[in-house]
Amino acid sequence: MEQQVKKESFRQRLHTLVYEADTPAGKTFDIVLLALILLSVLFVMLESVPSINASYGWFFTKAEWFLTIFFTFEYIARIVAIKKPSKYIFSFYGIVDLLAVLPTYLALFIPGTQSLMVIRALRLLRVFRILKLFKFLKEAKLLTTALKRSRPKIIVFLFAVLTIALLMGTVMYLIESEEAGFTSIPRSIYWAIVTLTTVGYGDIAPITPLGQFFAAIIMILGYAIIAVPTGIVGAEIAKTDMEEVTSSNTQACLGCSKEGHEDDAKHCKFCGEDLYPEEN
Amino acid sequence: MEQQVKKESFRQRLHTLVYEADTPAGKTFDIVLLALILLSVLFVMLESVPSINASYGWFFTKAEWFLTIFFTFEYIARIVAIKKPSKYIFSFYGIVDLLAVLPTYLALFIPGTQSLMVIRALRLLRVFRILKLFKFLKEAKLLTTALKRSRPKIIVFLFAVLTIALLMGTVMYLIESEEAGFTSIPRSIYWAIVTLTTVGYGDIAPITPLGQFFAAIIMILGYAIIAVPTGIVGAEIAKTDMEEVTSSNTQACLGCSKEGHEDDAKHCKFCGEDLYPEEN
Amino acid sequence: MEQQVKKESFRQRLHTLVYEADTPAGKTFDIVLLALILLSVLFVMLESVPSINASYGWFFTKAEWFLTIFFTFEYIARIVAIKKPSKYIFSFYGIVDLLAVLPTYLALFIPGTQSLMVIRALRLLRVFRILKLFKFLKEAKLLTTALKRSRPKIIVFLFAVLTIALLMGTVMYLIESEEAGFTSIPRSIYWAIVTLTTVGYGDIAPITPLGQFFAAIIMILGYAIIAVPTGIVGAEIAKTDMEEVTSSNTQACLGCSKEGHEDDAKHCKFCGEDLYPEEN
Amino acid sequence: MEQQVKKESFRQRLHTLVYEADTPAGKTFDIVLLALILLSVLFVMLESVPSINASYGWFFTKAEWFLTIFFTFEYIARIVAIKKPSKYIFSFYGIVDLLAVLPTYLALFIPGTQSLMVIRALRLLRVFRILKLFKFLKEAKLLTTALKRSRPKIIVFLFAVLTIALLMGTVMYLIESEEAGFTSIPRSIYWAIVTLTTVGYGDIAPITPLGQFFAAIIMILGYAIIAVPTGIVGAEIAKTDMEEVTSSNTQACLGCSKEGHEDDAKHCKFCGEDLYPEEN
Repeated sequence: MEQQVKKESFRQRLHTLVYEADTPAGKTFDIVLLALILLSVLFVMLESVPSINASYGWFFTKAEWFLTIFFTFEYIARIVAIKKPSKYIFSFYGIVDLLAVLPTYLALFIPGTQSLMVIRALRLLRVFRILKLFKFLKEAKLLTTALKRSRPKIIVFLFAVLTIALLMGTVMYLIESEEAGFTSIPRSIYWAIVTLTTVGYGDIAPITPLGQFFAAIIMILGYAIIAVPTGIVGAEIAKTDMEEVTSSNTQACLGCSKEGHEDDAKHCKFCGEDLYPEEN
Repeated sequence: MEQQVKKESFRQRLHTLVYEADTPAGKTFDIVLLALILLSVLFVMLESVPSINASYGWFFTKAEWFLTIFFTFEYIARIVAIKKPSKYIFSFYGIVDLLAVLPTYLALFIPGTQSLMVIRALRLLRVFRILKLFKFLKEAKLLTTALKRSRPKIIVFLFAVLTIALLMGTVMYLIESEEAGFTSIPRSIYWAIVTLTTVGYGDIAPITPLGQFFAAIIMILGYAIIAVPTGIVGAEIAKTDMEEVTSSNTQACLGCSKEGHEDDAKHCKFCGEDLYPEEN
Repeated sequence: MEQQVKKESFRQRLHTLVYEADTPAGKTFDIVLLALILLSVLFVMLESVPSINASYGWFFTKAEWFLTIFFTFEYIARIVAIKKPSKYIFSFYGIVDLLAVLPTYLALFIPGTQSLMVIRALRLLRVFRILKLFKFLKEAKLLTTALKRSRPKIIVFLFAVLTIALLMGTVMYLIESEEAGFTSIPRSIYWAIVTLTTVGYGDIAPITPLGQFFAAIIMILGYAIIAVPTGIVGAEIAKTDMEEVTSSNTQACLGCSKEGHEDDAKHCKFCGEDLYPEEN
Repeated sequence: MEQQVKKESFRQRLHTLVYEADTPAGKTFDIVLLALILLSVLFVMLESVPSINASYGWFFTKAEWFLTIFFTFEYIARIVAIKKPSKYIFSFYGIVDLLAVLPTYLALFIPGTQSLMVIRALRLLRVFRILKLFKFLKEAKLLTTALKRSRPKIIVFLFAVLTIALLMGTVMYLIESEEAGFTSIPRSIYWAIVTLTTVGYGDIAPITPLGQFFAAIIMILGYAIIAVPTGIVGAEIAKTDMEEVTSSNTQACLGCSKEGHEDDAKHCKFCGEDLYPEEN
C-alpha cells in the first residue's frame, strides 16, 4: 500500500518534471531538452556536409549516441510518468519522439550508406517537437486560427491553380520546342507551376517568340492570381484580429447576462440594463 | 401512347442518372465519371513522357479507347436525356464533352506524329469538366464573386502594366547590348514582363552597369506595382465576405418587412418592431 | 466679318471632331486614331526583329510614312482647333504628339543606323496617348487616387528598401567571392535588389556557405518586406473604395442640408430631420 | 565667471548649429552634411569598381580624406556641444558617427589590401545617419508603428517558415541527385528558402521527376504562405491608419471629459452633452 503511494508520488513528480513547466525543475528540464533538440538538428545538418563530416565525423557519431541515449531516457520517462501510456505512445508527439531515437539504433543493424543517410535524416523529425512551444504563443494561435478558417478557400484556390497549370503546361508543351526543356507534359506543368508562382528558376524557359508571348500571358495571369490567397488570408487575419479585440471585452450584462458588448458601451445593447452599476 | 410514356419515363430516369446527383445511382455515376476523367488526364500526361510511353504505350492506347467509348456513350446519353438536345450540345460543357472524345476518333484518319500529339493533348480539355464540381462549393462562389467584381479594376491595371512593360522593354533594348539577349523590342518586352512579375528566369539579364541600374529601377517599380492587384482583390474578398455574413441573417421585420438586420439585433432598426415576438 | 464667323465655326467644328467624342464623327475619329496608334506601336516593335525587318522592311517604311503624315495632320488640326495653341503645344499630350511625329522626319537628316534605332524607338511614345482613355474609366480613377494617397508612404518605404539593399550588397561584396559575380559594390547592390524583390535571375548567386547563409537571411527579410507596400496600397484601396460607396449616397438633409448619411438611414444623424418626407 | 558664461553660450550656439534644424544656419548645416554623407557613400561604391578605381583612385583618396576630416570635426563638435558627452558617444548615432571616421585613420596603420577593403566598406555605415531624417516623417512613423506591432506575429511566422524550409530541404536532399546541386542538407535548406520565397535563382534546381514534383508542391506551399506576412502587416497598417484618423479628433467632452468621438459627432456618445456649445 505504501509502496503504491510512493510509486504514485514518484510518477507524479516525474510527470511534473517531464510534462509540466510550472516548477523550476520542469522549466529547467524543458530548456535543456530544447537546447539538445536544436543541437541534434544542427549536428544532423552539419554531418551531411562532406568536408565537415570528413574532419568531425567521429565527434558527430559520439554526440549522436549521447543525444540518442538522453532522448531514449526521456521517452521512457514520458511513458512511465503517465497513467495511460498508450495515450502518449500513439499521440503525434509520441510517434515523433520514437522516430527521433529509432534511427540511431536501426543504423546498427542496417548496412549500406544510402539507407543510412535516409535514416539519419529521420532524426531531423525531432524539430517537430519545437512546435510544442507554439502552443503557448498568442500570436501562433491567431495565425493558426486565421489559416484554419481560410483553408477551404485556399484549397479551392489551389485546385484552380493546378487546373490552370495543367492546361498552360500542355499548351506550352505543344507550342514550345524540346530544346527549351519542354520534353513532356509533366515537365511542362512543372514549368507552368514554376512560372505561375513567380519562382522562375530559368532551367526551363521558352525560346521561340510564340512560346515567350504565351509565357508572358501566364506570368501576368500569375501576377493577378497571386493576389487571391493574399486577399483570403489577409481578410481572415484582419477578421480574427478584430474578433480577438472584441471578445477581449468579457463584460456580461447583470440583467440578461449576455456578452459581446463594445468596449465603450455603458448600457446592455440587448435589454438596456446599466453595465457598470458599481461605478455610479 | 404507352410507348410514348415509357420513352418519357426512360428519358426521365436517364436524366436523373446523368444530370442529377440526388439519387444513389446519380451519385455513383458522378463519382465514377470523375475518377475516369482524372484517370484519362493522368494517362494523357504520362503518354507524353518518352520513357514511359516506350514501355506502356500499348496500355495507354487500349485505355484511351476504353475511356473514349465510355465518354461517347455518356455524350449520347446526355443528348438523349434532355428534351432540347441543342441546349446541351451548344453549351460550354457540351462542347468540352465533344472535344474530349473527338480526338481519339480523329487520330484514326489523320496521319503524322506531330498533329497526333496536338490532337491527343486536346483530350486534356476533359479537365474542364471537373470545374462543374466548383458550382457546389460555397468557397468557390465567394472567390468567383470577388474576382468578377474586381475584374474591371484588374483589366485597367493589367493594361497599365503592359504599357509600362512596353516602354521599359524599349528603353532596355536601346541601352543594353545584344549579347545579353535584348535582340529585339518584343524580346525586351518579354524580359520586362519577366522582371516586373518577379518571375526572373535569368535567360535574358542585363550585363552593362547602365542596364543593371535601369533593371533595378524596374524591379523596385514591379515591387510597388505587385501591391495593386493584391489590394484590389483583397479589398473585394473582404467586402464579399462581409456581405455574405451580413446577408446570412435573412430575418425580415414583421412590421415593415425589411431585411438587413445585424445578427444580435432584437428590434427592427427601421421601425422599432420586435423582430422575434414568438420568443417572448 | 463674315469670314471671321466662318473661320470661328470651322474651328468649332474641328474642335468637336478632334477634341470631343460626343458626336458620331468625333467618336469615329477617336477610334480610327486609337487603331492607328496601336498599329504604329506594333510596327515599331516588329521592325526591331531582325528576321521580320529583312523581309518586310519596305512595308514598314511605307506604313511609317503614311502614319507619320496622318499624325502630322492631326497635330496641325489640334493646334488650329484650339483658341490658345500654346496651351496644347506645351501640355503633356502636346509634347508626346510632337515627339511621335518628329523621329520620322529627323531620320531623313540624321545618318547612322544606331542613332536611327533610338529615334525610331521614340515613336513608341505614342503609346502614352492611349493613357488619355483612362480618364474616362471609373476604375482607373479609383486606382490612381489610391496610388496618389499611398505615394508618400511608398516613397519612404522604397528609400528604406534602398538603404537595406545598399548595406546588404556591401556585406555580400565583402564575404562572397568574385567568381560568383560580386565584383564591385554597385554590382552587389544590384544583386541585393534582384534578391529582395524576389526576381532572382541567378546571373549572380552566392556560392560560398557563408554567402548562401547570408543570402537566405536577405530573402526571408525580403519576404517580410514585400508585405509592406501591399499592406499600404491594400489599405488605401479599401479606404478609397469605401469612401466611394459612402459618397454614392448623395442624399442631403432637408433640415440642415448636410450629406454623408448611411444608405439605410431614415433620419438625419445631425439634426434628426426626416430624410425622406415625401415617402411617408 | 564671464568666461564660463561665454563658454556656455558658445556651446549653446554650437548645439543649435549641430543638433537642431530650426535656425537657418542649423538647416544649412544639416543639408550640407546630408549631401556629404551621400557623396561619401557614392565614392565608396564607385571605389569598389575596378575600372573606375584604376582611373580615379587618386581622386577618391583625396576626397575621402577631405570627407573624413570634415566628419571628424563634426564628431568633435557634437561631443563639445552637449552637456553630457557620454550620452551622445554611446548612443546609436554616436557609434555610427565614430565608425564612419575610424576606417580612414585605421587604414593608415593596417597594411594589406583585403582588410583595407573591409575597412573601407565600413564607411558605408554613414548611410545609417540618413535614417535620422525618417524621424520627421509622419509616414515613417506609421510604417514603423505597424511593423513594430506585427513583429511578434512575423517572428512566429518566420520561425514556422524556417522549420518548413528545414524539413523540405532535408527531403529534397534525400530524393534529389547531387549533380543538381543538392550536395548537403544546409545547401538543400538554402535551396528550399530560395524556392519558398519565390526568389528562384536556378543555380540549384531539381532535375529528377520526383524532385520536380516535390519542388512544385513546395512552390505552391510558398505561394500560399507568402499571403501570411502580407495579411499580418496589411491588417496592422489598416488598423494603425484608422487609429491615427480616429485619434486625430482630440475633442474632449465638456460634461464627462471623455475623448474618442467620431469626426461628425455633435453630442458626446457617453453622456449626451453638447460637444460644441460655443458654436450654437
